[in-house]
Amino acid sequence: MGIVSELNLREDVAKLTERIMNIESVSGNEKALADQVYETLRGLSHLEVHRDGDSIVARTNLGRAQRVVLAGHLDTVPLPHVAGARGTVPATVTDGVLYGRGATDMKGGVAVQLALAAELTGPRFDVTYIFYDHEEVAAEKSGLGRLARNSPQLLQADFAILLEPTNGTVEGGCNGTSRFLVRTTGTAAHSARAWMGENAIHKAAPILVRLASYEPATVDVEGLAYRESMNAVRISGGVAGNVIPDYCEVEVNYRFAPDKNLSDAEAAVRSLFEGFDVERTDGAEGARPGLDQPIAASLVQILGQEPKPKYGWTDVSRFSALGISAVNFGPGDALLAHTDDEHVSQQAIRDCLNTLRLWLTEAN
Amino acid sequence: MGIVSELNLREDVAKLTERIMNIESVSGNEKALADQVYETLRGLSHLEVHRDGDSIVARTNLGRAQRVVLAGHLDTVPLPHVAGARGTVPATVTDGVLYGRGATDMKGGVAVQLALAAELTGPRFDVTYIFYDHEEVAAEKSGLGRLARNSPQLLQADFAILLEPTNGTVEGGCNGTSRFLVRTTGTAAHSARAWMGENAIHKAAPILVRLASYEPATVDVEGLAYRESMNAVRISGGVAGNVIPDYCEVEVNYRFAPDKNLSDAEAAVRSLFEGFDVERTDGAEGARPGLDQPIAASLVQILGQEPKPKYGWTDVSRFSALGISAVNFGPGDALLAHTDDEHVSQQAIRDCLNTLRLWLTEAN
Repeated sequence: MGIVSELNLREDVAKLTERIMNIESVSGNEKALADQVYETLRGLSHLEVHRDGDSIVARTNLGRAQRVVLAGHLDTVPLPHVAGARGTVPATVTDGVLYGRGATDMKGGVAVQLALAAELTGPRFDVTYIFYDHEEVAAEKSGLGRLARNSPQLLQADFAILLEPTNGTVEGGCNGTSRFLVRTTGTAAHSARAWMGENAIHKAAPILVRLASYEPATVDVEGLAYRESMNAVRISGGVAGNVIPDYCEVEVNYRFAPDKNLSDAEAAVRSLFEGFDVERTDGAEGARPGLDQPIAASLVQILGQEPKPKYGWTDVSRFSALGISAVNFGPGDALLAHTDDEHVSQQAIRDCLNTLRLWLTEAN
Repeated sequence: MGIVSELNLREDVAKLTERIMNIESVSGNEKALADQVYETLRGLSHLEVHRDGDSIVARTNLGRAQRVVLAGHLDTVPLPHVAGARGTVPATVTDGVLYGRGATDMKGGVAVQLALAAELTGPRFDVTYIFYDHEEVAAEKSGLGRLARNSPQLLQADFAILLEPTNGTVEGGCNGTSRFLVRTTGTAAHSARAWMGENAIHKAAPILVRLASYEPATVDVEGLAYRESMNAVRISGGVAGNVIPDYCEVEVNYRFAPDKNLSDAEAAVRSLFEGFDVERTDGAEGARPGLDQPIAASLVQILGQEPKPKYGWTDVSRFSALGISAVNFGPGDALLAHTDDEHVSQQAIRDCLNTLRLWLTEAN
């Protein structure tokens, strides 16, 4: 028995957002929503539709000179723990504001993708609509990463837009992120005879002093100011209330501007913590904004707003790694993402749709 | 059916130690050994024997001018995890050295108590022999504490000796111990926008700096030098690799000389961490050595060795709190206590017995 599509891609895009918010799709549980998206898009004759697990790629093939990607993830972070919180399913609407899990991150963006996919039978660029799973969990699970491995040809394009929430402005590129363990060791002893040991927590004092006095840089990249940060995100040491600790570990997160690669970032951290044992445990490079390209500039021009740098690491980096310039542009406030008060104004979703429709259909 | 005593208190005290080491008595499991001790002592007509749970008190009632306590705990820390390690039951003997759990802490001392209890029908002081449970676990479980609450009259004495391991010298009094949580708070934020938060781990830098540069005092009390210590024993902070931590907590253990009470200790710690949130979570006062009393001096004289300060907190403090001067004096090296290599020389046990026999029987 086939899946019956319940989505009407031609209705008000804010209403469409609400409908897909009501199909719960916490990471790992995207199938029901992916089924709906797949069945609905398969019914559109101007699109070629592919599916890989719970990721769906729909493409026009109009022979245009350029191709753009519109991409968004289907999954959300878990529902709020508080029963009855506004973030739970079903979504609610109050005074033109849509509340619930996925409101900002990013079912509004996904609804805009779906509306454009249905409506634009003859856009001025060929368009690839990508809907993917597992964005909110460990990077190796990402549906976009899986697509890039399994079917890289499906991702090929001249420019990509991720419909992550940017409050309706274009946010270019993103900072890279890296994590390190900075460690001290000592000698355990009973704390009643502390002088027979060496306290590894005390030896960590300079690590915190250097972090506390570190002044993170703001780096200009292609006219956008990327603000960096260097932070202890975790510290642990000690085994018992009467033992001199022989080990202390500080986890440091360095968010670095896209003028640096991962090696540059690691060198900076090793220099800061010179004299300490430093191990890099994680890292993802950022992405340059790519706003110097005409195709990106035309989007910025239609929007009529100054583009901003993106601070958080997003999947624009995956496109960047494939040689495709990418920006973030979507409805909603990124600061509300993952909160129990996640919400988006219905008008913001409609405005995003209107801007992209204009950009994709305006005569060259 | 009654318990049949298998202990022969008249045999070589080192052999007696080995026998009671082979009656496993990890804290909470003292009953089998307590039964043996109780049944054996009940058979001695010169002793009045009481039992409270797995604690046993046996007293002479000779109408002497002074009464001394000889006290020791029946329990041990858990057996080593390594199967076949020398600390497991049964005990082993190699070249006159007895290996196994309890060898130093403190079945040698308990054997000396038992041997004296059987042998000395007419000591020069009345003697109270106390064998108690639950010394190696949380203080509120202590059998000695329970006796002090239930039957304080049984503990009354002019002087007390704890047969904890002191390598055969007299160790007077003990340091007090206290624990504190020193806390910082900040503001959580996504680490990609660290400037919207305030890092509680960074704010803990001065706590570690003050600890690292703290110079602990050595305090003379009644001629003994008590070495203090001030240490971070645990640190924790941070919730995730991408969140600016809003909380950091350092657990500090201050071991203080017996010239100070708990209020003095707390004041010192609050002064050191001025400007930080400090909470005292634990505390036990130390004990002055009490070596200025003639009854204690006579023991030191017979031994012919300089007494030393005791650093670790021991149950001498419980006697001190009852107004009874107390010292530690027993066979074995305290540094081996709780290790997988716990051992004691057989001769050290015999020497301890000989010293106490001489002290308890010598004409005034």
